[in-house]
Amino acid sequence: MANKFNKTIISFVESNFVQQFIIGLIVVNSIIIGFETSPDIVSSYGGMLQLIDRLILAVFVIEMLIKIYAYRLSYFMNGWNIFDFIIVSIALLPTYGSLSILRAFRIFRALRLIKNVPKLRFIVEALFHSLPSLSWIFVLLSLVFYVFAVVGTKAFGTDFPIWFGTLGASMFTLFQIMTLEGWAEISRTVQHTHPFAAIYFISFILIASYTTLNIFIAIVVNTMSEIQHHDNAEQIQAIESIITDERSELINDIKILKEYIVRLEKKIERT
Amino acid sequence: MANKFNKTIISFVESNFVQQFIIGLIVVNSIIIGFETSPDIVSSYGGMLQLIDRLILAVFVIEMLIKIYAYRLSYFMNGWNIFDFIIVSIALLPTYGSLSILRAFRIFRALRLIKNVPKLRFIVEALFHSLPSLSWIFVLLSLVFYVFAVVGTKAFGTDFPIWFGTLGASMFTLFQIMTLEGWAEISRTVQHTHPFAAIYFISFILIASYTTLNIFIAIVVNTMSEIQHHDNAEQIQAIESIITDERSELINDIKILKEYIVRLEKKIERT
Amino acid sequence: MANKFNKTIISFVESNFVQQFIIGLIVVNSIIIGFETSPDIVSSYGGMLQLIDRLILAVFVIEMLIKIYAYRLSYFMNGWNIFDFIIVSIALLPTYGSLSILRAFRIFRALRLIKNVPKLRFIVEALFHSLPSLSWIFVLLSLVFYVFAVVGTKAFGTDFPIWFGTLGASMFTLFQIMTLEGWAEISRTVQHTHPFAAIYFISFILIASYTTLNIFIAIVVNTMSEIQHHDNAEQIQAIESIITDERSELINDIKILKEYIVRLEKKIERT
Amino acid sequence: MANKFNKTIISFVESNFVQQFIIGLIVVNSIIIGFETSPDIVSSYGGMLQLIDRLILAVFVIEMLIKIYAYRLSYFMNGWNIFDFIIVSIALLPTYGSLSILRAFRIFRALRLIKNVPKLRFIVEALFHSLPSLSWIFVLLSLVFYVFAVVGTKAFGTDFPIWFGTLGASMFTLFQIMTLEGWAEISRTVQHTHPFAAIYFISFILIASYTTLNIFIAIVVNTMSEIQHHDNAEQIQAIESIITDERSELINDIKILKEYIVRLEKKIERT
Repeated sequence: MANKFNKTIISFVESNFVQQFIIGLIVVNSIIIGFETSPDIVSSYGGMLQLIDRLILAVFVIEMLIKIYAYRLSYFMNGWNIFDFIIVSIALLPTYGSLSILRAFRIFRALRLIKNVPKLRFIVEALFHSLPSLSWIFVLLSLVFYVFAVVGTKAFGTDFPIWFGTLGASMFTLFQIMTLEGWAEISRTVQHTHPFAAIYFISFILIASYTTLNIFIAIVVNTMSEIQHHDNAEQIQAIESIITDERSELINDIKILKEYIVRLEKKIERT
Repeated sequence: MANKFNKTIISFVESNFVQQFIIGLIVVNSIIIGFETSPDIVSSYGGMLQLIDRLILAVFVIEMLIKIYAYRLSYFMNGWNIFDFIIVSIALLPTYGSLSILRAFRIFRALRLIKNVPKLRFIVEALFHSLPSLSWIFVLLSLVFYVFAVVGTKAFGTDFPIWFGTLGASMFTLFQIMTLEGWAEISRTVQHTHPFAAIYFISFILIASYTTLNIFIAIVVNTMSEIQHHDNAEQIQAIESIITDERSELINDIKILKEYIVRLEKKIERT
Repeated sequence: MANKFNKTIISFVESNFVQQFIIGLIVVNSIIIGFETSPDIVSSYGGMLQLIDRLILAVFVIEMLIKIYAYRLSYFMNGWNIFDFIIVSIALLPTYGSLSILRAFRIFRALRLIKNVPKLRFIVEALFHSLPSLSWIFVLLSLVFYVFAVVGTKAFGTDFPIWFGTLGASMFTLFQIMTLEGWAEISRTVQHTHPFAAIYFISFILIASYTTLNIFIAIVVNTMSEIQHHDNAEQIQAIESIITDERSELINDIKILKEYIVRLEKKIERT
Repeated sequence: MANKFNKTIISFVESNFVQQFIIGLIVVNSIIIGFETSPDIVSSYGGMLQLIDRLILAVFVIEMLIKIYAYRLSYFMNGWNIFDFIIVSIALLPTYGSLSILRAFRIFRALRLIKNVPKLRFIVEALFHSLPSLSWIFVLLSLVFYVFAVVGTKAFGTDFPIWFGTLGASMFTLFQIMTLEGWAEISRTVQHTHPFAAIYFISFILIASYTTLNIFIAIVVNTMSEIQHHDNAEQIQAIESIITDERSELINDIKILKEYIVRLEKKIERT
């Protein structure tokens, strides 16, 4: 009976109506959190907005608790549920003192839309789908970053502490250079004291952009060849059915031939 | 009879000659509006240019009125006609006072070329053709923008009002960062007071560029697979015709066999 | 006999040895012109370099004259020959006074390598090959540029003459914005006096980059589908040969059947 | 016997355990060299880190010497071994005086991971795999760079020595312009004294980006068409097996027909 009760709860929580109601609440909640960025609106309607925000949060918590009750531990088997759980939990944390930055994270609730709108979830899952096949090229890129960061820190660190003072600073500067943003200014400045720095910067740009280019090509080629494999399978099936159709006619013709011969045989027997 | 008159009008308005005359007028009009950007030319020939401009506009209005008269309401069923209607209407609005900016919009008449030159219309329609399949990825990108804008406004708004003072300012700054223009300078400045800002900026760049990359990939893959489907259909047809040809020879051979057997049968019957 | 003499000349001028000798001269000439950019080298070896330069130029002129003599007017039918003719002619122009800039153009002789090295010529021809199919998208992009340039000049020209003072300045600024270089700074500055300028800049960036993206996609898709058409033709041929092979066995089997029946017929006739 | 001893050595050095031990050492070594960029860590643990570094280096040297002993000259036939040899040798060079920059190159040891982790080696080999087919397009790009660098140096060198003072400076500036970084500022500055400079910069950007675009397209198209050729071969095989299957049935039918006729023949003979 508990089982039956569970099923009723699940079918209620996952009904179209409740789903759409939750989507509506997420949208309203996201807009309210957006309003809270405006001091004017906060001073006029701050109290009301906070009230609505807490009410909506209460609904989210209740929805989550019902789901956890209904699905038990299997709730936490699903990545999207864990995603939901973390987002709702952040909202429940105290937000005073050094944790006040967490208030800004409340807007992450808007990301729950991704889970609740199937089209968005599908796109995000597709985006993540390409990542594993790229993991080793990311390892390679990280290795390139690390090697260049160490060389940069050791070679330019003492003269240009803001850009290359620590490994972290060098990594940030290399990321900046990879985006090609302001790289020439940095390179020209460093070249004043280290004439060979141009080799460092240009070789990094070439290696990093060639590797990034290949990440991009890998995604295009993977996606295309998956589609192609599917298409090829379809094409082979189409050709197979054509061949089968054509052959069935031939087989029929041969069958008729056989009947002719059998008839002939009988005639001969009769004579 | 009204109907017949309508047909005559339509066939006249849509005749090659009138079409090319209109294209010519659009080009001349666009050049004149271009001339008007030069104070020297305006001071010497301003009156004449304005006269020609008004004459051409008159022709456009007459052409439009004739079409509306001929097609009646069905004129407004066509997106390109509405496009035309708005562009011509803008030109008729008064342009003094706060509406003087509308004078700059007169050059939009040049865009009528897109409607009137088939090749251009074809390309623009192809450009729009890809958009619907991208709509959900744009929703996702907007969501990412919104979440980052809210976080940015709340976290950096008070310290950097020019970049993150309001939601709108944050959105503009995020768009700037997505184009990678000057992002490093903004990030380095914000990092002075908010050491963890680098995470904000780098994660936004990675998410935004990965999503944009996937918009691009989606267009390439869509276009390619459409072409491929068409090609595959052609290929299957080619293979089908080959198989049919080959088979017809076999069927012929079998038919001859049949005739042989029938002949044989007759011979046996005769004996 | 003149004809025979011509053929001897042509086969000499186009012989591997002469071709490679010319390539060698172009390389040497390009290096010498490169050396002339260094004041030190010019002050020490200037005279010698100029002498070699003139000697090589003389060889180029003689080669060209021989070819023109041999091919007559048909020499000018070939685009690459006209290219050669212009480059060699520039070198013969006087280079004093206001024409001294033409001295810098002497390095264009290095471009003769493209004509003389088949691999390079092939690549350049392939690059040009894609252009015609892109011509209308370039017309569209020019139209977008023109419209935005006129709007920009009229709206921002008086306040920001350096960026939008004339149609030409606006076009340059728009090209700069299309490359995303420094666009945010321009936009933020213009926004101070024209709050709605952000719409102008962002819409231009979106339209220009989407159109450029489609230029790129058009090239990829064109190249891919050309290769694919070639591949498909090959594939159909392969399948055709398989089908023909298979069928020939069947036809052979049927032929044997026929022979059986004929033998049978004869036996019956004999009885 | 020496041979047998060699084989034992090789199978030991290339055993999974030793390989993974070396990978572990490379990672530890890379982290240690990373630590050495921090003055705090160096002042506290500098001696210990240097000791571990030397111990690990000793292991690398011993591993290399064993391999050289075992493989003799054939060791140097493999590109990856030469790569290893150079990296380990750099570490053994003295690092005082003007060679102290070589200390920074010790981190190149981290690149040995590429050789030792098969997945990384595979990716890097794939990255290099595309390069030869691009070599002529690089020659073309170099030619374009050289021509523009010579023109730039001659035309703008005296007025803007920092950007165009020497051929090398011009090449660097052109590379910067190709990355679109700060090109507009350079162009606007040069235009003050050379009004036609805009043509120089814009034509370089168009030519360089169109050529680069084609490098990119060449890689995509090459990769795609390699995959496609493989796919097509598979598809043809699949179709061949379908046709063969279908035909075998037909052949069987015809065989039965033959048996019928033979039986008929025997019957006739008997009568």
